[in-house]
This record gives sequence, structure tokens and C-alpha cells, in this order.
Amino acid sequence: MGSQKTACLLIIGNEILSGRTADANLAYIGRRCDELGVPLVEARVIPDVEETIVAAVNTCRAAFDYVFTTGGIGPTHDDITAAAVARAFGVVVERNSEAVAAMDAYYEPGRLNDARLKMADIPAGAALIPNSVSGAPGFQLENVFVLPGVPMIMQAMFEAITDRLTGGRPVLSASIRTDLREGALATGLGRIQADHPDAAIGSYPYFRHGSLGVNLVIRSTDPVRIAAVKEAILILIDELHGKVLSQSMPGAPGVGTGTG
Amino acid sequence: MGSQKTACLLIIGNEILSGRTADANLAYIGRRCDELGVPLVEARVIPDVEETIVAAVNTCRAAFDYVFTTGGIGPTHDDITAAAVARAFGVVVERNSEAVAAMDAYYEPGRLNDARLKMADIPAGAALIPNSVSGAPGFQLENVFVLPGVPMIMQAMFEAITDRLTGGRPVLSASIRTDLREGALATGLGRIQADHPDAAIGSYPYFRHGSLGVNLVIRSTDPVRIAAVKEAILILIDELHGKVLSQSMPGAPGVGTGTG
Repeated sequence: MGSQKTACLLIIGNEILSGRTADANLAYIGRRCDELGVPLVEARVIPDVEETIVAAVNTCRAAFDYVFTTGGIGPTHDDITAAAVARAFGVVVERNSEAVAAMDAYYEPGRLNDARLKMADIPAGAALIPNSVSGAPGFQLENVFVLPGVPMIMQAMFEAITDRLTGGRPVLSASIRTDLREGALATGLGRIQADHPDAAIGSYPYFRHGSLGVNLVIRSTDPVRIAAVKEAILILIDELHGKVLSQSMPGAPGVGTGTG
Repeated sequence: MGSQKTACLLIIGNEILSGRTADANLAYIGRRCDELGVPLVEARVIPDVEETIVAAVNTCRAAFDYVFTTGGIGPTHDDITAAAVARAFGVVVERNSEAVAAMDAYYEPGRLNDARLKMADIPAGAALIPNSVSGAPGFQLENVFVLPGVPMIMQAMFEAITDRLTGGRPVLSASIRTDLREGALATGLGRIQADHPDAAIGSYPYFRHGSLGVNLVIRSTDPVRIAAVKEAILILIDELHGKVLSQSMPGAPGVGTGTG
């Protein structure tokens, strides 16, 4: 995946770092980025601190092809993402008439108060990202896409920008779940990985419903390569007298939880 | 929280970035760090790439008082955290006899094969972190604590190192859930925040079971301050004719999901 485009996600919010709220956006964006051929290669969770946001935006927009941010674009005092991104780009924040119009169309008459209008204060030169769910738009400055934290709204706005991303071949994956332990599989798995350097084989042990096992995940842009690696792993599991508990074909990854 | 000690978490693993597995360790570590008085102020999710791990470990161990890593210390080819952390510190990896003894005691006779013994290859000079669940230890080098990715094992090992952390006063929090919207609360909330600069008031909108509202979270090391802010917010909600749907007293945060 050497010449592959890369993406980075900045998750902005004290509530994630405190453990109070579990982030639900990384999994969605990670999966979609694979499908779009711009794999997510780093994510950072950072607090609602302006200097921290400025530094992270500037580091990441230089290091990755695309940067997505989530969180901190609402109307309250702790929503400082727009101001911080403007500072990172050295531009001012200004009341955006297109954003005002979008919000005016969304809110009932008399509800678009000064606090809400703060959400129309957007860095100069930004392109808006339409919000079909709740009115207030996100925005794009060069390769940085500023999205909200509420998953339902974030997802709608992410889907509205996919045509602004230039992706490579989608990253495909297939998985095999087995009752074998990692220590039994490791030697054979290392041999298969060495035989297929252009696929990435991940091995993730799990404890689930009281039983132990391993999820094996094969990732590549080449479905033929994935199929070859998968066949080699199925033969290895059989040689080790293991069971295949489930398997998926090359395609979009699913989302699991509780393993690592 | 100016002189407060700080912590950073490095979540190592392609499977989190691909969206295939939802991380379950950040919420646990974030909550426990608040309780221990070493709040988590950054988390990074990075891939199983040695150069990336080395760079992140070196950046973060200089920037934060404590660094925790999760993932990548098993027996398979993609488990490269120990080697990368050793390289970050400029030390060699060597077979650790104390680790071998711990694993020998855990595994049934004949099961401690070469692949599993790889988990006893630990950076020179590291202090081990005992693993009461599955034998293979983690390790500590200076202010960096290397933990596994499987949540049940990670949690047991995290609890084994809490006495190695020098914390400040615990960060306490209280929360209020209301049916008001952020745009209605914003002005009054900003005034309350300005009146109480030594508490952090977070405002997190949610869509849940088809209804809209806001979770307000007050964080401070001072329970008296939290109680004062909470009282002011309850008065504000009443003035705005909102409902208090739930509230928590100052104390350890709970873990929610799906908001942002």
C-alpha cells in the first residue's frame, strides 16, 4: 500500500478522554476510509484546548493526505474547533452567509438565536459541508474536514464529502475466527506473512462468552491475494487440528467489539 | 489543574484503525486516570508499524508524565511493540528469566513453545508488570507502561501498576442530563463557566431513543466547586423551563456511548 493516500482522524473532546463517552466515530470513519481507498493510518483523541487543537491540526495536515476532525463545533463555550482550525491556517473566523441561510431554513422562526448563530462563524475561505440532519454545517479548509461529534450527524456529513476525496484502490479484508490460540498459530502464520508481503495479516486474540480464540484478519487491495492468504491460513488451521468458527469473504470489514 | 500530572495512551493496532474492532481500553484507562489524579490528556491510535511506534513513544514520553501502550505484545509476527519500545529507548531486547518463570507457571507442561517464549523477550532494564490472567507479563521502562490489548487482561495489569503512579488529587465529575437544546443553554452556560474558571463544564448533545437533549458534565478536583457549578446549572435549566432527566453526584464518571 506504499503509494496509497492516507487519512488521519482528530477526535476532539474531553468527554472521550475522561472515559465518560465512548467514541463511536473512529470505527465508522476507519471502515469508510478503507472502502474509499484512503486508509486511516492514525487517530488522535485530544482535549478541548485551543493550543493542542492548533498544533495537532498543523502536524497532521502536513503528515497525511486528509485530516478529519470530529467534535467541538456546537454553540456552547467549549466548542472551539472552528476558532482553533482558523488559527492553525492563519485565517480569521467570519459569519458565513451561506451557513446562516442553511440554519435559517432548518430552525423554526425565532429559534435561531445568537448562540446558535455562533455555528455560522466559519474560517474565511472554507468550503461548507452540508448538514442534512440538524442544519449547522461543517467545513473544509484545504485537506482538513471539520465534522461534528454526534455520530448520526457526523455520518451524514461524512457521506456528503466522499466525492471530495481522491482515493486509491479500496482496502479489502477477510477474516477467519478460530478456536486455536495465538501461540499455536504464530510460527505458521509468520511463514504465511513472509510468503505474502503485500498483504497484512493481523492476529487478534479474544475472550468471548468464556472461550478463547483468535480472529485473523487479512488486508490488501488485491482480492486474489486475500483469497490466497486465506486458503493458506485455512490449511494451517486444519494442520493444527483447529476449528474454523466463522469466516468472511474479501470485502468491507465489519465492526466488532471487546477484542484487541 | 495546572500542576496536575498528565498521562497519554498509545493504542497500537491496525484493527482499531480499520474500524474492525472498537477499542475498549481508552474508556477504562481514562476513567481510572481521573480517579488516580493523572488525567489522560491525549490518546493516539497508531498502526503496527515499527517506525510509527518508535516515534510516538519518544514524542509522548517526553511530553507527558506517564505513557500507557496497549496492544502488540503477543506471540505473532504482528506483535512488534516490545521491539519498538526497546528501539525508542535505545536498548536491546533480551529473554527475561523472570518472565519465562511466570509463563512456565501459567502454561500446561509442553505448551510453552518458541512462539510463546517470544513474549518473554523484553527490553533490557524493564520492570515487569504481572499478568494474573494469562501469564505473559507486560513491562515498564521509565515512564512508559506496556500493556496488552485484550481488555480483561489489560485491566488486570493496569490495576497492578497503579501504585507505581504518583497522582495528584482525583479529578471528580458530576453530570446533568436535560431535554434542553445546546442553543438554548449556551449563553447561560458560558456565563457559569466564566464565573467558575477552575471547573471545566462540558456540553454534549445527544440523540437517543429518538429524543434530543444535552449531557452537561462538570469536572474539577474540588467537590465543593462542582456542587456550586451544578447548583447554578440546575437554576439555569429551571429558568429556561427545561427538565432535568437525570443527574449524578460528584464522583467517578460512568461510561456512556453514542453521544459526542
